[in-house]
Order: sequence, then C-alpha cells, then structure tokens
Amino acid sequence: MNVPAYAAPAAGEPLAPTVIERRAVGPNDVLIEVTHAGICHSDIHTVNGDWGPQPFPVVPGHEIVGVVAEVGPAVTRHQVGDRVGVGCMVNSCGECANCLRGDEQYCLDGMVPTYAGTDRDGTTTQGGYSTHVVVDADYVLRVPDGIDSAAAAPLLCAGITTYAPLRRWGAGPGKRVAVVGLGGLGHMAVKIAAAMGAEVTVLSQSLKKQEDGLRLGAQHYHATSDPDTFSQLAGRFDLIVNTVSAAIDVDAYLSLLAVDGTLVNVGAPPEQLSLDVFSLIGARRSFAGSMIGGIALTQEMLDFCAEHGIGAEVEVIAADRINDAYERVLASDVRYRFVIDTATLG
Amino acid sequence: MNVPAYAAPAAGEPLAPTVIERRAVGPNDVLIEVTHAGICHSDIHTVNGDWGPQPFPVVPGHEIVGVVAEVGPAVTRHQVGDRVGVGCMVNSCGECANCLRGDEQYCLDGMVPTYAGTDRDGTTTQGGYSTHVVVDADYVLRVPDGIDSAAAAPLLCAGITTYAPLRRWGAGPGKRVAVVGLGGLGHMAVKIAAAMGAEVTVLSQSLKKQEDGLRLGAQHYHATSDPDTFSQLAGRFDLIVNTVSAAIDVDAYLSLLAVDGTLVNVGAPPEQLSLDVFSLIGARRSFAGSMIGGIALTQEMLDFCAEHGIGAEVEVIAADRINDAYERVLASDVRYRFVIDTATLG
Repeated sequence: MNVPAYAAPAAGEPLAPTVIERRAVGPNDVLIEVTHAGICHSDIHTVNGDWGPQPFPVVPGHEIVGVVAEVGPAVTRHQVGDRVGVGCMVNSCGECANCLRGDEQYCLDGMVPTYAGTDRDGTTTQGGYSTHVVVDADYVLRVPDGIDSAAAAPLLCAGITTYAPLRRWGAGPGKRVAVVGLGGLGHMAVKIAAAMGAEVTVLSQSLKKQEDGLRLGAQHYHATSDPDTFSQLAGRFDLIVNTVSAAIDVDAYLSLLAVDGTLVNVGAPPEQLSLDVFSLIGARRSFAGSMIGGIALTQEMLDFCAEHGIGAEVEVIAADRINDAYERVLASDVRYRFVIDTATLG
Repeated sequence: MNVPAYAAPAAGEPLAPTVIERRAVGPNDVLIEVTHAGICHSDIHTVNGDWGPQPFPVVPGHEIVGVVAEVGPAVTRHQVGDRVGVGCMVNSCGECANCLRGDEQYCLDGMVPTYAGTDRDGTTTQGGYSTHVVVDADYVLRVPDGIDSAAAAPLLCAGITTYAPLRRWGAGPGKRVAVVGLGGLGHMAVKIAAAMGAEVTVLSQSLKKQEDGLRLGAQHYHATSDPDTFSQLAGRFDLIVNTVSAAIDVDAYLSLLAVDGTLVNVGAPPEQLSLDVFSLIGARRSFAGSMIGGIALTQEMLDFCAEHGIGAEVEVIAADRINDAYERVLASDVRYRFVIDTATLG
C-alpha cells in the first residue's frame, strides 16, 4: 500500500512530500488512518543528523493519533473505527524481563522506534507524518473519548515522558513537585502533576511564560536566572522533573530537594554532567533519569488525561508548514506543541 | 568530672593520653562507662585536618559501646547497668521536619556530631576514646543481648551507614545487591544485605579478600580491575552500595544496574564526579547518597543485627596502639575494624 507522507531526504535538508510503502496488514496488525501527528524536538534532532546517521529518507512522527481502518484476524484489542494512538515505539521482543514487566521501552533486545528504526522483520520504520501507518496491535493505544485528537497526539510522547517519572516518584497530594522548563514536555508535566494533586512549581529561565504556567496548573513560578530562587527554594521539593536537555548545574538543582527527594532528567544533554556527591549524601537525595514509558503505562496515562480533561496545548498546522514549524520549535516559538493535520498530506 | 581520654593535640599530630572534662549528668542525660570505641576512617580524616580546621584537642570516636553508670531524673529509656551505644550524633533540634520524621542526621538546624562538634549548649563535643561520656538519653541506643560489645561498637557508624541505604532501597529476597569495597563499611554491608535475604556480590579492586567476602555472606566476588567484570555484570543489580570514598567511574557502575536500579554512595570523594545522563535515562536508574541514619533506624539496625547474630569483624587493641592502628587503617591493613578496649585508657 502506497501512502502520501512528508520525509527528510537527507540530513539537514527540508522535509518534502513523498510516497512511502506500508506493509500489508498482518494477523496482529492494525492499519491506522492517521489524523494528527505531533512535532517532537526529537524529530528535528533525528532529521538534522544530530543523533548520528539515519536511514534516509526519514518520515518522522511518533505522536500519532488516528482511526482504525483495518485489523488483522488475530487482533482483539482494537476494532475498525476506534480512535487510537501510537507513540515512540512500535515493537519489542516481548519476552525479556523488561518487556514482561511492562517496560518495553527498555527491551533488552532493543525496542523498535516508530521511525528510522529497524523493525523485527528487518524493514525500516517510518513515522506518523503520513496518511496511514501499520502497527502491531500490542503497540497501539486506545484514545479515550473526551480528548480532542489534536490535543491527544502529543500525549503519546510528551505526555508519557512526563507522566512516567511523576508516577514512578509519587507525585500526588502533599508532594511538592518542580518542573524545570516550560516547553512541550514541561507544559504536560505541569498539567499532569497538578491533576495528580501535587503542589506544582515551574522553574523557568525567565518569568516570560508565568501567566501560562499558572493557568496550566502551577501554584508557583520562579526564574532560574534569579540567583535568589535557589536560596529561597532550598530543600523545598520532593521531586524535580527536568525537561531541559541542556547541561544544568546539578548541585544547584539538587539543593532544592528535601530529604529523600529526586531530581529526574527526561532528556539527556550531550555533555557529561558533574556533581558533588555530598549534594546527594547530605539529604539522601537521588539524581535519576526516565525515558518515555511502557505500553500499559501509556494507556494508563491516556485514561488519566481523559479523566482529568487534559490534553496538550497545540497549534495545528498543514503539512506544508512543517519546515517553518521546525524553525519555530528551534526558536522556542511554540505554545506548546505543533500538530500536523494529516488530512493536508493527501 | 575529669576522665582519661586519648586526644589529637593538633592537626596531623599523634594522639596522646589526656584528661577531659565531662559535664554533670543533666535531667535527660546518661553517663556511660565506655568499654569499647571503634576506629572509623572519619576519625583519621578529622584529626589530620582533611576536613578543615578542628577544635583541638580532639578526642575522636563515634562508635561507642559501654554500660550506663548514672541517669538523670527524666530518663526513662535507660537504666544503670544497661549496655548501650552512641553513634555519630549526640544531639539535634528535635523539632524540625527532618527530626520529627526520625531523620535527625539531617536536622535542619544541624545535628551535633559526637566529637569536634558544637553542642546545643555551646560546648565542644568529645568522642568515645575516653573512659566515660555523658549523652542526652534520646541519642543513646540499647545494645541487645547476643552481640559482643567489641563487635557491636562499629555497628554505631559502619553498621547504620550501610543498613540505612539497604533498608531504604529495599534489599531483600529476590534482590541483587552489589557492595563496592570490602573494608570497614563494605564488610558490614555484605553481612547485613545477606541477612536481609538479598543475593550479594562484592566488587573489589582485586580478588585478595575473596575468601573473606564469601565467608561474610556474599555469593559472588568480582575484581573491578578486570574490565570483563563490567561487561559480564551489565544490567545485573537492583542496588549497588558504594563504600569507597575515592572517585569512581559513575557511568561504569551505573551500567551494572537493572531498570529502576540505584547506585548509592555512602562516602563522598573530594572531587566532583561526572556522568552521562543517558546512563540514568537508559534504564530509569538513580544515583543516590546516604549518610548514617536516624536514631530509631539505628536501634532497628542493632536489633536486626542481634537477631541475625551479626557483629563487625574486629581487632581489639589497647589505647597505646591507636596511632599504629591509624597507620594500618590508612594502609587498608585491617580486617575489618579496630576497636579500642577503653579499659586500657585509665
């Protein structure tokens, strides 16, 4: 099946319309007619070659929402007409300790990324900037009623990336959670942490987005460019979710944690980070990292978001604006996620 | 009350016999006739001035076991004749969030160290290398029957320092725990983790102490000087307790952790340590630190050790051997803790 798509022909080149082939629907496959695809910063890193050589042409997109158009005979979880989503992975071994525990993203055999990855049958995966995608049913999520499809798309990456650490480290009533950075990931972290019942503080470089932060559910907002922030908030937080992929002063952020507090990075800066171990020992603190989340947890996150009326704040664009949108993402000029209306691809 | 003691007269000078004054027994005080005092590496760092200027003369010793000789009228927890212990702290504010939660070691007003500290009445604390000590009853532990006093002394620092992270990060049946370094702290970590039911592996520079490690309760023993160790054991452990205060290759040790695993440092090297955040993100790992433990947890540890027949492996020495013992500790020539028989001080 040949379908319209937008692809990067080579590293650093603008994306352009193309046609790609989707495999025939296998016994456990779902054919999805894509309606929306979010633009994640990872898409840009990948097509720009920041993360090494890629199997060009690359069709990015791992924040996919659409409608089931066909299912294989073995599929029981999804039916034609269902609204569904696909996130950052489309396969894994299913048999290792991590997969069996529901941490498919940490599959010991390597999970299969939604695009620019090698699927278990040897083919190269192509992402959601296309009208259709064929995905193993076990990696397809149900999008519950009550979330708009455009607002749901970014949940498949930005949502689960922030939900997973908030859940793992117990964000909830009586917990003080700080979110570092108010971008695509950060704005989801604020909404989700607030819905979990935590007291949420945004730590952003400036106060430029303060109004937004408070509207999204934060109770406090501080500028990290103001050195007083770090003395004022010393020892305050149970959990800090750092959504910024640039290098940070780890000791400064650790100093904001109470006893048993955790600083979790959801992005990895290219540089090594250094810290004074006493920042950890001095209050039994932890410095941790988290990467997306397993399939069951992603479903839980979608259900949680529907229940709490949470979606991403999005700017829906036509496919021919993708390259402009990339420029604007790089300039941090988006509040807070671009989502492609894939009807404009055809 | 004037009592015999051993003190360092100045930074880097040998310890020598002296006489110090102990305060009169206050309403909530306990006068302890010290029988044993362990020699901790911290004692040596302190008297050598490695940790900055000290209020010399300094009487070290924060692994104290003795017998109650007198109690103040308000004391209900201890009676004359009881066998008791004192660890690394002898006071704290008792009112801050950390004290109220039982984490007196993280007192927001600053806990009072057993020696070379300033007590809440403004006096300088003096440690356990002396025949008697007067301590607030709330900071005095019960030493249960069934642990030899000499073997109990090191539990008050080395024991709780390793028990606390093993307990906090869930060492127990079905958990794989690695202990880095088989010295005073490490040998306690091995015994305690094994008694908790964990599968214990020692990671030591060489295989020199392998026989000891296995006898103390480890099931596996690997040399970290052998690069194969790191590939063989990749992703294996749920918890690594690092008892070595020198700088380590954090990424290499993190790579030995399974998903959700934690590397805990109980010592702080003087250098900043650096790491690749992907080492954390790639398996939702944590790098943490822990410092001794609260009073209630220290009592729990002593009770646990008594129940499981655990004491430190000690070499009991007379007071006039303290300076030689310091040399031998610095040369790692002790299996595994020196304990001073304080009867030899008088």
